[in-house]
Amino acid sequence: MPVMTDFDLRDLPQRELADGEVRIANRWLSVDPYMRGRMNDVKSYVPPFQLDAPMDGGAVGEVIESKAADLPVGTRVQHMAGWRDEAIVPAKGVNKLPDIDLPEQAFLGALGLTGMTAWFGLLAVAEAKAGDTVFVSAAAGAVGSVVVQIAKAKGMTVIGSAGGAEKVEWVRSLGADHVIDYKGDVPLVKALGAAALDGIDVYFDNVGGDHLDAALAHANQGARFAICGMIDGYNASQPTSLRYLMRVIAARIRIQGFIVSDFMGRIAEFQQGMGEIVAGGNFQREETVVEGLENMPDAFLGLFSGQNKGKMLVKL
Amino acid sequence: MPVMTDFDLRDLPQRELADGEVRIANRWLSVDPYMRGRMNDVKSYVPPFQLDAPMDGGAVGEVIESKAADLPVGTRVQHMAGWRDEAIVPAKGVNKLPDIDLPEQAFLGALGLTGMTAWFGLLAVAEAKAGDTVFVSAAAGAVGSVVVQIAKAKGMTVIGSAGGAEKVEWVRSLGADHVIDYKGDVPLVKALGAAALDGIDVYFDNVGGDHLDAALAHANQGARFAICGMIDGYNASQPTSLRYLMRVIAARIRIQGFIVSDFMGRIAEFQQGMGEIVAGGNFQREETVVEGLENMPDAFLGLFSGQNKGKMLVKL
Repeated sequence: MPVMTDFDLRDLPQRELADGEVRIANRWLSVDPYMRGRMNDVKSYVPPFQLDAPMDGGAVGEVIESKAADLPVGTRVQHMAGWRDEAIVPAKGVNKLPDIDLPEQAFLGALGLTGMTAWFGLLAVAEAKAGDTVFVSAAAGAVGSVVVQIAKAKGMTVIGSAGGAEKVEWVRSLGADHVIDYKGDVPLVKALGAAALDGIDVYFDNVGGDHLDAALAHANQGARFAICGMIDGYNASQPTSLRYLMRVIAARIRIQGFIVSDFMGRIAEFQQGMGEIVAGGNFQREETVVEGLENMPDAFLGLFSGQNKGKMLVKL
Repeated sequence: MPVMTDFDLRDLPQRELADGEVRIANRWLSVDPYMRGRMNDVKSYVPPFQLDAPMDGGAVGEVIESKAADLPVGTRVQHMAGWRDEAIVPAKGVNKLPDIDLPEQAFLGALGLTGMTAWFGLLAVAEAKAGDTVFVSAAAGAVGSVVVQIAKAKGMTVIGSAGGAEKVEWVRSLGADHVIDYKGDVPLVKALGAAALDGIDVYFDNVGGDHLDAALAHANQGARFAICGMIDGYNASQPTSLRYLMRVIAARIRIQGFIVSDFMGRIAEFQQGMGEIVAGGNFQREETVVEGLENMPDAFLGLFSGQNKGKMLVKL
């Protein structure tokens, strides 16, 4: 587990913009579990963070100086130079926010990479369809809470897991048919068995560990597991222990890891589909907002103890 | 682990044949790891064995009495009433052996369900193709040794694992590019890393446990794992411990369990393709033959300590 002294808030020297660059005042910073992986010095799908260099991540802000003709001062944009209050970014690394009647930080959440992760993980990777029973772990989290709502909008039965009475109640309010309190007294594998009397067809994994094992125990024939995250394992030195792994054979389970960036070519499909769900009027966005750049490490570490309900954001 | 006293050799009363039935003198009995699963009283893809009733499994024999017109006395057949010296089977449960110049027991091995398991696991489930690097565990086993040879015939690089110098040498003689002795001093994950300098694209799993973990550690982007068996786990009361499971996400690994019976509708594809490989003349069949029905439990238990090289068979 990272500690506060691993982080440092530093002033960096200003510099002039080069042609094609914009200076952005960040308003909202995205705080995501995957960032933990970038703190390990290993080859992965994104390069590791470098020591003594700024970290990055999703951000929404406003152009305050521009040497790019199509991004005039005042443009609201989304980009990947987060973890800082001001950023210089080339125009090609910047997306203008569409003119939609939603708060701008939604483009870091349900209408941004978080929503895309939920959409393609559920519908493309796990191939979930109407009538399926879907189990979603960390269903009160940023991705999980969107998965629950997409699944309900598409006619699935949804079982969510969340930690503590307040989150359980909130996930129920999103439309989940059953919600398991993983901090409760009943072992997860039993609780899932009681909730999924006919088994599960799809598992959307944000947690790994015991959640994955419970899903293996109750998977139906031909079940599909979309492995989005394993927050239980990011800081663990112990191996994952699975009692029900052998069921992959008899139940012909498919376990598939994915990264949302694999689906960038299908972003239009997401924007259209998610736009329809949001336009339906029942969609719920929840945010846990921490104020101030200096509190970003706190917000980040809070992800691993479940401090967030919905999307964790830092507001500048 | 089952023990000898779990088995009993019993004389059953004779009975007359009904119309459409044949009486078969079994010559060869198939001994397979999957039978261990049928000893657990759980719902699975085949019903569990029943206490005080004969077990069954693949067998090859000769019709010695017939009330089925198309199966006259003397017909050589394959069927599923094994674990016994004589069987009464309805004609629809019996396959005539084709007239091919191969020993009849080959239809329990490379040209039977064992070969089909190798064929469809490698080519359909794992979608292995020319140029892929394929890791096969238990490569000296019945299924593994066929996987090695199919993969080489199809232009793949093959890394096998086997236990002990003699089996390692044999797997090398089948054409494997690298063979790891899993009983050696080097931890499996290191040995696989040294053999697979460019990683693995496909893992054909017959073992589970440490083998699966090593495959996770060295899987390339988009690697496909076909989970055929987990002989390490059949008799284990301990959960499987995986240190590298999180790599499914970053490497987008697909883990897919399968059962050969899912592919019965594609048997012609197997017979044609495997027939061509066998006709090529380089195909090696190896058998470990135990004599006598009374020694069938010994042969079966031997599977779990790696007593077999190639297909384990009992000859009557």
